[in-house]
Amino acid sequence: MRVTRLHPVERLGADGSRRRRADTVAGEEPLEIRVGGSPYAVTMRTPGADFDLVAGFLVSEGVVGRREDLASIAYGPGVDADGRASYNVVDVTLAAGVTAPDPSLERHVYTSSSCGICGTSSIEAVSRTSRFDVAADGLRVGLAELLALPDRLREGQRVFARTGGVHAAGLFVLGSDGVARLVCLREDVGRHNAVDKVLGWALREGRLPLTGHLLQVSGRASFELVQKACMAGVPLLAAVSAPSTLAVELAVEAGLTLVAFSRGDSANVYARGDRVAA
Amino acid sequence: MRVTRLHPVERLGADGSRRRRADTVAGEEPLEIRVGGSPYAVTMRTPGADFDLVAGFLVSEGVVGRREDLASIAYGPGVDADGRASYNVVDVTLAAGVTAPDPSLERHVYTSSSCGICGTSSIEAVSRTSRFDVAADGLRVGLAELLALPDRLREGQRVFARTGGVHAAGLFVLGSDGVARLVCLREDVGRHNAVDKVLGWALREGRLPLTGHLLQVSGRASFELVQKACMAGVPLLAAVSAPSTLAVELAVEAGLTLVAFSRGDSANVYARGDRVAA
Repeated sequence: MRVTRLHPVERLGADGSRRRRADTVAGEEPLEIRVGGSPYAVTMRTPGADFDLVAGFLVSEGVVGRREDLASIAYGPGVDADGRASYNVVDVTLAAGVTAPDPSLERHVYTSSSCGICGTSSIEAVSRTSRFDVAADGLRVGLAELLALPDRLREGQRVFARTGGVHAAGLFVLGSDGVARLVCLREDVGRHNAVDKVLGWALREGRLPLTGHLLQVSGRASFELVQKACMAGVPLLAAVSAPSTLAVELAVEAGLTLVAFSRGDSANVYARGDRVAA
Repeated sequence: MRVTRLHPVERLGADGSRRRRADTVAGEEPLEIRVGGSPYAVTMRTPGADFDLVAGFLVSEGVVGRREDLASIAYGPGVDADGRASYNVVDVTLAAGVTAPDPSLERHVYTSSSCGICGTSSIEAVSRTSRFDVAADGLRVGLAELLALPDRLREGQRVFARTGGVHAAGLFVLGSDGVARLVCLREDVGRHNAVDKVLGWALREGRLPLTGHLLQVSGRASFELVQKACMAGVPLLAAVSAPSTLAVELAVEAGLTLVAFSRGDSANVYARGDRVAA
C-alpha cells in the first residue's frame, strides 16, 4: 500500500555490462469505488489521495458537482487476505437528494446518446451532462506564464523524480500580479487518475466550479481529459504532449482553451486562443 | 472516421510570435464492442484495425484464445446521425461452445477474487484466467537485438511521425539468425488499444499462443499490459518507459521477461533476465 516500492533490477548496458541494483518503482494497486455500498467502478491507481481520486471520479462522471453532494467518504468495508482493513475499497455516501449512478449502466456518458455512438454524440453528451459553462469564463493568462507551467509541474513531482514512472496534473490559479500559482498537484500511474485526484481535491475544498483556474497535465490531451476539465468548470487545459481529434473538437464546442505540445519555449493552441495574452 | 485529421492551430513562441497553421491530429473516436448483439464495452480508440482491436480485447479479457473461437466480426448494426452505416460499433459472434462474457459483471478479472481487491488477488486472477504458460517459454534473445527494438518500432510508426500523438505496440519474432523481425505494428491514442490491436491480429492469423515472440511498447509497462502479454502467451514485454509495482510483481509471478526503460543504449530487466543473452 505504498506510493513506491523497491524492486531488484538488472541494468543492461549496450557494452554487455549487467549491474544489479534496487530500483524505485511507482506503486499501482486496484481501487474499487462503491457508491452507497454498491460497486461502481474499479481503477488501477497509485495509492495516495484516494478520497480525492474517488471524489474527482464522481465529478468527472457528473454524479457530484459541489462539496455538499458528498455526505461521507470512507475506506472499506472488507479486509485483505491477512485480515487487515482494506485500503483498496472506498465507499461514498451521497447527500440526500443526489441521484446515485445506475450501476447497471455503462459508465461512459456518451453511450446514452440517442443518435448512435460517434464523436458528435460523445461531445453532445458532455454538453448535456456538464453543470458548468466554461465558454463564458473571463480567464486571461500571459504567454510567459502559460509556457512556465510544465516546469512548475515537474518541479513539484516528487514521485516522478524517484521513479520516472508517473503522470501528474497540476491546478494553478492566477494571482493579482498575473503569476500562475500552483494550488494542487497530484501524481498517478494513470493520466486520468492524476486529473481526478486534483478535481476531487477541489470539490472537497469547496472550489468548484474552477473558474479562472488552469490545469496542466504531463501527458497527452485526450477526449476524457477535456471532458474532465469541462465537468469541473476549468476554462484552460494545457498538455505537454499531443491532443486527439475528439479532444480538439470537444474543446472548440465547449469553449475551453486547449493547449498542447507545451514545451517551455513554445506551445500550440487548438481552441480559444483569445485567453492567451502576448 | 479517419486515422488523422487536420485542425487549425495557433503556434505560440516564447518570443511572442503567433503563427496560424494546420496541424495533423491523431484520430480518436468511441468504439462500442458487442458480443452476440449485447453491449460489452466502450473504448476510445484511433480508427483503423478495428477488428484486430476487438479480437485482441477479447483475448485480453480471456474470452477467446484461438482463431476458431471467433465465428464472425462485423460492423454495426446501426447508422450514424446522417444515416450512414456506423463504423463505431463492432459486433462479435462467438463460436459454438465459447462462453460469452456476462455483461452484468465488471469486466476486470481481478474483481472476481474471493479474498478482496488487492494486488495479490489481481495477480491470482490473471494466473487463473490465463490459457497459456509463458514461464516455460524457451525464448533467448541477444542484448543487441533487445536494445534495437525501440528504434525499429519508431521507424514503423507512420501515424506518430505525422502527429506525435499516438502509442505503438510492435510484435517481433527471432529469425534463425537471431535477428528480431517485426511481424505486426499497430498504433492508437490508447496504449492498451495498441497492444490489443497487435494481439487481435495474432489471434486472427492463428498465431496464438505467441511462443517465442517479443512485444515492444512505446509507453509505460502497467499491470494491464503485462496481463495482456500473459493472456496471449508472449514471453517478453519491453517498454520504453517505466514499469509499475504491480506490473513487476505479475511478471515475476507469471515468469514473463519484463524489460523497461529500454532506451537504445541500456535497459532495465525486472523479471526473468535469463532470457537475455550477452
